[in-house]
Amino acid sequence: MNVIILPPSAFDDTPATIDNAEQLNHIKTVLKASVGDTLKIGKLGDKMGVGQIAHIDDKVCFLENVRLDTNPPPKLGVTVMLALPRPKVLRRLIVDMTAFGVHHIILINSVRTDKSYWGSPLLTRLDEFVLEGLQQGVDSVPPAITLAKRFKPFVQDILPSLINDKSALVFHPYAKTSFKDFIHKNPLPDMIIIGAEGGFVPYEIELLASVGVRAVSLGERILRTESAVNATLGRWV
Amino acid sequence: MNVIILPPSAFDDTPATIDNAEQLNHIKTVLKASVGDTLKIGKLGDKMGVGQIAHIDDKVCFLENVRLDTNPPPKLGVTVMLALPRPKVLRRLIVDMTAFGVHHIILINSVRTDKSYWGSPLLTRLDEFVLEGLQQGVDSVPPAITLAKRFKPFVQDILPSLINDKSALVFHPYAKTSFKDFIHKNPLPDMIIIGAEGGFVPYEIELLASVGVRAVSLGERILRTESAVNATLGRWV
Repeated sequence: MNVIILPPSAFDDTPATIDNAEQLNHIKTVLKASVGDTLKIGKLGDKMGVGQIAHIDDKVCFLENVRLDTNPPPKLGVTVMLALPRPKVLRRLIVDMTAFGVHHIILINSVRTDKSYWGSPLLTRLDEFVLEGLQQGVDSVPPAITLAKRFKPFVQDILPSLINDKSALVFHPYAKTSFKDFIHKNPLPDMIIIGAEGGFVPYEIELLASVGVRAVSLGERILRTESAVNATLGRWV
Repeated sequence: MNVIILPPSAFDDTPATIDNAEQLNHIKTVLKASVGDTLKIGKLGDKMGVGQIAHIDDKVCFLENVRLDTNPPPKLGVTVMLALPRPKVLRRLIVDMTAFGVHHIILINSVRTDKSYWGSPLLTRLDEFVLEGLQQGVDSVPPAITLAKRFKPFVQDILPSLINDKSALVFHPYAKTSFKDFIHKNPLPDMIIIGAEGGFVPYEIELLASVGVRAVSLGERILRTESAVNATLGRWV
C-alpha cells in the first residue's frame, strides 16, 4: 500500500474518515503512524494528496488538513483483453494491470477457460482487487472492467467498435511475427489480447483476425499468463 | 508443464524411466497419454526431444524410441540479482526467471529483507522451482543460482568480477533516469538488480554505485517485485 485510496464518501464530512479495516491496519502496523503524522491519500476516481491524522483508534481514523491537489499519473493507453484466468491468478492479474495503469480491462470467455471460473466468488470482488492495485501503483482512477461471457458475439459485435482504426494484437505461440519484431517496426498497439493457459484455439484466432486483430508470438518460450501480461506491459513503462 | 524434463539418470537404462509423481500425474490427467503416445521430453542440463510411452502405471512410466536431438533455446544473457523476497513470492519468481531463460540468478540479502526469509524451507527447494520453470518455458538447462547472505562483501568482493566491463543497472524508484530512457540510448544491460518490497536503502544504492552499477527507475508507478521482474525481462523477449 503506497497510497491510501478512499471512497468519495470519506470526504463528505470534515475531518475525513478512514474506517476500512485493512487500511487502518496498514496505518498502524506498517506505517506505524499516529496523531500528527501525514498520510499519502487519494480520492477514488479523483485527485491525490495528503491528510494529517487527527485521531486514530481500532475502528476509525480521522484526517484533518486534507489537501487533494495532485493529478493521478496518466493511464498507459492500452486495453488488455484477457481470457478469464483461474480465480487464484485473476486476483494478482487485476492488481498488476491496475498498478501498471491499464485503462480498460476486458475479461472474456474462451474455449480453454473452465466454465466454473465464471461462477467464482472472486469475480464479485473485482473492486477490492482494483483498490489493491491502485494503492500499489499510486493511482486513484480505477480502470474500466468489462466482463464478456460470450466470445463470438463480443468479438463480432462489440470489439470492432473498440478497435476502430486502432491496432490490436493477440498473443499466439505459433504466430509467425514476434511481438518484439512487431513493435520494432510499429508503435505500441492500443489493445493486447492474451489467452488462458494453453492459449486461444485456432477458431478464436481466426475470428479475431476477421475483425482486424493480428497474431504475434512472445518468443519461443512459453510463459505463465501472469508472466506474459507483466512482460508485455513492461514495454509501456 | 510444456515439456517433461528428466534427470540424466532417467536415461541410464533402456527404456528411459519417469517416476516423479507430479510428472506421472501430468501425463495421465492433463495429457491423458497412454501406451504408444509420444511425449515431449528433455534431459536436465542437456538436449530435448521425444520419447514414446512403452508402459505406464501409477508408479512408473517407461519410454522407448527416445530421441534427444534438439538444442534447448538460448538463454537470455542477463543476470538477475534480487534481494531475497518473501518465501511465497520466491517460488513464483524462480519459476518465472527460469522460464524466461535468465542464465544466472543471485539472491542477495538487503536491509529490507526480513532475516527470517533466509531460514525458509523453500530455499532448500530451489531445484524443484527451477524444474517447474524449465518445464513451463520449454528448456532443459537450469540457470546458475547464487545465494549471497551478506550484501557488503558480495557487492565489494564478488560483484566487480561478475560485472567486469559489462553494464549493470539497479532499479530505484527515485533514480533520475528511467529504464525506458536508458535502453532507448544503450543496449540492454548484462545485469539487473532489483530490491525487495520497499527497494534498496540509499546506502545500498551507493555501495552498488561504487562498483559501477547505475540506478534507473521503472516509471512513476510502484510495481510488486514479481511484476517488476517480469516487466523488465519482457524487454528481452
